[in-house]
Amino acid sequence: MKFSAEINVMPLKEILDPQGKAVTGSMKNMGLAEIQNVRIGKHISLEIEAANEAEAREKVDEACKKLLANLIMESYEFTLKPIA
Amino acid sequence: MKFSAEINVMPLKEILDPQGKAVTGSMKNMGLAEIQNVRIGKHISLEIEAANEAEAREKVDEACKKLLANLIMESYEFTLKPIA
Repeated sequence: MKFSAEINVMPLKEILDPQGKAVTGSMKNMGLAEIQNVRIGKHISLEIEAANEAEAREKVDEACKKLLANLIMESYEFTLKPIA
Repeated sequence: MKFSAEINVMPLKEILDPQGKAVTGSMKNMGLAEIQNVRIGKHISLEIEAANEAEAREKVDEACKKLLANLIMESYEFTLKPIA
């Protein structure tokens, strides 16, 4: 079975996000001062071949831990969906 | 009312994603050859103060168009949620 995964990797809340801070400032300069607390991370989409959803989940988790996220500074979450 | 927005900005399907290609290759080297078609974009979370959801949606759309996404190379989508 084939699954598609949508993964979000975000900087941990305790950690400063200078890119997000800069964008929050730019929003103000552009007349969008209503926008606050911008945080910027990565969005990753991928496809995975696995026998079942549990196996797919395990593999995606491994990929996140080993390659996609730096767990010292980032957290991740993902959703899995079977591809018809 | 305060809303939180979760925005995904992804490279257009028609456009090569060299970062995603590199990560797809790394997956193979790491023994995760089941993972294919990796595409990497940005995930942005922000908070917005607006009178109602329609106004919040309009402002977030404006922010995406003007600052967060490069519409020549990227597409965006977002979800809005009221913050209790």
